[in-house]
Amino acid sequence: MSEPDAAGTAMRALPAMLDMASLQRLYREGGATPPQVVEEVLRRIDAGGDDAVWISRVAADSLRAAARELMASGGPDAQRPLWGVPFAVKDNIDCAGLDTTAACPAFRYTPALDAPVVARLRAAGALLVGKTNLDQFATGLNGTRSPYGAPRSVFDSRYISGGSSSGSAVAVAAGQVSFALGTDTAGSGRVPAAFNNLVGVKPSRGLLPVRGMVPACRSLDCVSVLAATVADADRVRRIAEGPDGQDPYSRRGTQRFLPANGFRFGVLAPADREFFGDAAAARLYEQAAVRLQALGGTAVEFDFAPFRETAALLYNGPWVAERLEPLREFVRDHAGEMDPAVRSIIEGAARFDAADAFGGLHRLQVLRARVAREWSRLDLLLLPTAPTQYTVEQMLRQPLLLNSRLGIYTNFVNLLDCCAVAVPAGFGEGGLPFGVTLVAPAFTDDALAGLAARLHHTAACGLGIDRGAPVPEPEAAALSGTVLAVVGAHLSGMPLNHELTACGGRLLRTCRTAPDYRFYVLPDTVPPKPGLVRDPGYRGPGIELELWALPADAFGAFVARIPAPLGIGKLRLEDGSEASGFLCEKYAVAGAEEITHWGGWRSFIARSDRKPS
Amino acid sequence: MSEPDAAGTAMRALPAMLDMASLQRLYREGGATPPQVVEEVLRRIDAGGDDAVWISRVAADSLRAAARELMASGGPDAQRPLWGVPFAVKDNIDCAGLDTTAACPAFRYTPALDAPVVARLRAAGALLVGKTNLDQFATGLNGTRSPYGAPRSVFDSRYISGGSSSGSAVAVAAGQVSFALGTDTAGSGRVPAAFNNLVGVKPSRGLLPVRGMVPACRSLDCVSVLAATVADADRVRRIAEGPDGQDPYSRRGTQRFLPANGFRFGVLAPADREFFGDAAAARLYEQAAVRLQALGGTAVEFDFAPFRETAALLYNGPWVAERLEPLREFVRDHAGEMDPAVRSIIEGAARFDAADAFGGLHRLQVLRARVAREWSRLDLLLLPTAPTQYTVEQMLRQPLLLNSRLGIYTNFVNLLDCCAVAVPAGFGEGGLPFGVTLVAPAFTDDALAGLAARLHHTAACGLGIDRGAPVPEPEAAALSGTVLAVVGAHLSGMPLNHELTACGGRLLRTCRTAPDYRFYVLPDTVPPKPGLVRDPGYRGPGIELELWALPADAFGAFVARIPAPLGIGKLRLEDGSEASGFLCEKYAVAGAEEITHWGGWRSFIARSDRKPS
Repeated sequence: MSEPDAAGTAMRALPAMLDMASLQRLYREGGATPPQVVEEVLRRIDAGGDDAVWISRVAADSLRAAARELMASGGPDAQRPLWGVPFAVKDNIDCAGLDTTAACPAFRYTPALDAPVVARLRAAGALLVGKTNLDQFATGLNGTRSPYGAPRSVFDSRYISGGSSSGSAVAVAAGQVSFALGTDTAGSGRVPAAFNNLVGVKPSRGLLPVRGMVPACRSLDCVSVLAATVADADRVRRIAEGPDGQDPYSRRGTQRFLPANGFRFGVLAPADREFFGDAAAARLYEQAAVRLQALGGTAVEFDFAPFRETAALLYNGPWVAERLEPLREFVRDHAGEMDPAVRSIIEGAARFDAADAFGGLHRLQVLRARVAREWSRLDLLLLPTAPTQYTVEQMLRQPLLLNSRLGIYTNFVNLLDCCAVAVPAGFGEGGLPFGVTLVAPAFTDDALAGLAARLHHTAACGLGIDRGAPVPEPEAAALSGTVLAVVGAHLSGMPLNHELTACGGRLLRTCRTAPDYRFYVLPDTVPPKPGLVRDPGYRGPGIELELWALPADAFGAFVARIPAPLGIGKLRLEDGSEASGFLCEKYAVAGAEEITHWGGWRSFIARSDRKPS
Repeated sequence: MSEPDAAGTAMRALPAMLDMASLQRLYREGGATPPQVVEEVLRRIDAGGDDAVWISRVAADSLRAAARELMASGGPDAQRPLWGVPFAVKDNIDCAGLDTTAACPAFRYTPALDAPVVARLRAAGALLVGKTNLDQFATGLNGTRSPYGAPRSVFDSRYISGGSSSGSAVAVAAGQVSFALGTDTAGSGRVPAAFNNLVGVKPSRGLLPVRGMVPACRSLDCVSVLAATVADADRVRRIAEGPDGQDPYSRRGTQRFLPANGFRFGVLAPADREFFGDAAAARLYEQAAVRLQALGGTAVEFDFAPFRETAALLYNGPWVAERLEPLREFVRDHAGEMDPAVRSIIEGAARFDAADAFGGLHRLQVLRARVAREWSRLDLLLLPTAPTQYTVEQMLRQPLLLNSRLGIYTNFVNLLDCCAVAVPAGFGEGGLPFGVTLVAPAFTDDALAGLAARLHHTAACGLGIDRGAPVPEPEAAALSGTVLAVVGAHLSGMPLNHELTACGGRLLRTCRTAPDYRFYVLPDTVPPKPGLVRDPGYRGPGIELELWALPADAFGAFVARIPAPLGIGKLRLEDGSEASGFLCEKYAVAGAEEITHWGGWRSFIARSDRKPS
């Protein structure tokens, strides 16, 4: 059944998982072509049989034509970072020419346009394979609430896939596509990642446009990404993100940083660790915390109560009415055609009046203030993604109770305006995967991904269904925020150090400048300050400095306060890298005492205390 | 009736208005003492007779004792910037020891503690005189909805005072106190300012704690300040502001700047100018726009439609249910004891269910996005504070219709997360005052006050009831944001200028450095860049530069991107002032071509085009 190979190359066997690093290596090395990959994708989907993963698919011939067109238009290039990468889209996000059902056939419509996120991925060269199954109207975390069937965990077909992005997760974990878009209002992009040994990136609200998505709770909805590795999911997120003038929830934000070392992560106190009897989950969570400490973090027990109460607001509070609002007419006319569990949840909105809604919003504000106090002493949280996993049979017996249990660690994330990355964290004895999630305030997406990649690497539990696949070494963590080198009165313990700590600065490390700097005592400065001047060709001891990470706005305010003759330029460090740091105008050191030989301000100060010059 | 004068000084006649500049000058010069001022305050309140301004007052002897205590504790000092300044508090804000009624006797309670805003003002040395009348539960903009009577405009007792901060406005405008706290959810701090020739500062939401305030709409409520001058109101705002850990709506923000010149202000298009037949109001609004242009602004007509629709949401949409929510039990038990208009508004909440509330929130989000597009081309709006003024008789005849008219230019401000300063703008032929309001996105409070002070000064329409009082010359406008001097590739029209405009920078002006700078062409830079090096004692032509204002966070990001050998330090300008600007490490100009004699990069580039060197 395979097409003639357009490029005429022999195809190497494709890996079980189509992670992008593997796929793009094959493309680069001529080991496979997009048409070949498309044939393999079609073969794997066929092999999946009646797995309830797909609601609709791009016609095989159209998919083949798209792959050939990609080939004809040249190879991978910088403009098409997803060249030849097959992907799936949850069937509550519009793809032009394929029906959108939200897993409710009576709701079906045919969109004329791609959602912006889909359009951006296609423009980047990705190949859309089809639309995936979900808990109806994205209302559920389990994957059984669909007339199109219940996808199963790729590790044990008795077990739920998780949801609501059920088909998206299984399609990726089974190696049918490289990545999939999901959506995430209460955890729908994270729970199915956990149950299928995948990464789920839940971006900051508004970072990816939600235009063209069937609303769940409009003020909370996010488009999310499921992939085998953090690098893949993060890359897709960065390509799909960006403002959309027609999406009122679209917003911009400055990415926050995490300290490269010494970050403080919240762990559940023993009394808050609820796994509903799943001892393997409890153990794997504990191990993840140990691994995160080994990556330089400090574990801090925190007050989970406001998070727990926020989570409960989502389904037990007035937010169910936000689900009803855009569907009111549909529910009135088609309630009988809805999944019974979903119907009962959404119809439950009738018990809340508008004052209840404002009461809920007020309560949320109170909880947010309590949570803000926790954030003041934490950089991020490490949480179980879900406390345990259930069989389809268990789920159908207690559809509401067990579903609510699945969300205890995810439901609050969007209400509290956080971003999150769910990563695999190992397998229990029964062969079921367990996942953990890193959570941080909105616009920590970049930094959180860097840390999540490192944590995933240490888990060494394979990729999706391929438990033996190596988890790729993360790229050097891209530290957001601004790094500032200080050499004098701002060093730790020195008189102006508080200016760095007061604005949220964190000490990263101590090192030295390159050898070609001279160091002087500036006359008449209070408190006493040194001046650093570069003298190319000079070979001195290098000057001791501290690297501090500052939030971008604080950095600006800091620079603006610096008095002449000091300024901020680029310093060369002993390892050849550069950092923003203090420089001194040269005129100011004319006649000044040179102290280069002390090798740093701290040594000079200490020495001069004993033997004043 | 006057007390013996504790300081033994003879009192000069106090001015009709107790603005702080006048009062504090008297204190400084020994022309009056707090006990003397207190006697005059008591005399004026007595003279006001049955003016419906006060709901409760500090006992005269307690007030006298407080004034004596201030005297005994020493004179005005930096820790007590409000030393001896008498003030009033709207009776929906707690003052320890005085009942809080919210103008509803059945709702009365006696708070044990001052609201934090009141405590901060008292700590600053201000003297609390009493609690002022209001539209019940701050629900109204007219001042007639109170069982304690309807305060009247100080200019014509047939006319309404405006509300809901009715008593606060009249107490200040009649010279009974120096300033008063109001609250502002829909315009309650601005409309009564306009009707009494006063300034009303409506701070950014969350800047002043609302703890200890009876909620109107909790997500929108602000404590506001009424005073005779912008300087007074702004000073009080700065003293009362600041985080409150027990107020979940308290928030911090970085103050935004307005360009010192060339700011763009929105004016209503002719079709949007609704004054309900009040020709004087129409003319005074037009004149205010002309005066604002004379202050360096550019008038820009804008799309008022999303603002108008937002305003309508507040009373015609589900937000009335936010008023009901904290009062639900009270309304159930005491509806018969409420003002009929207020009762009908709040009970109207019953027609909205929770889905309506979320629908309203969604609609607001859509409108916010439309408004954001307007803000992208505007720095602020200039609006009438209220379209016209009504008599008490007219108001009582059509209590809902006329009240809704009063709010067409104020109701949207808090829903759209803006701050505002209402300032007097002259008098109509009938002797009634008219006011305009400057509106800008949240956290433009500082800069907006600076501009409002200048606009008020040009109105020259007196202070409160004293139409002949000179409006003080505003202090030099404090420009927020960071000023950056550029000398090379970032100048207007040069290759890197877009880096400044892309991050929201604005050109402030062109000038020169001090004479002691030398200027070089840096070798091997792309695009070509100059280097500026200070050489104390040298007397050259000074180097041309442009001063740009950048948002603080953008400034930081900008500095972090600058490559060696350039950096940002402090430049001395021709007028002796300093600004952050580009400097060059000296080693980099060794052997470089000196171009100081060209006097600037632009001249050098232009010249070298004609005659390449």
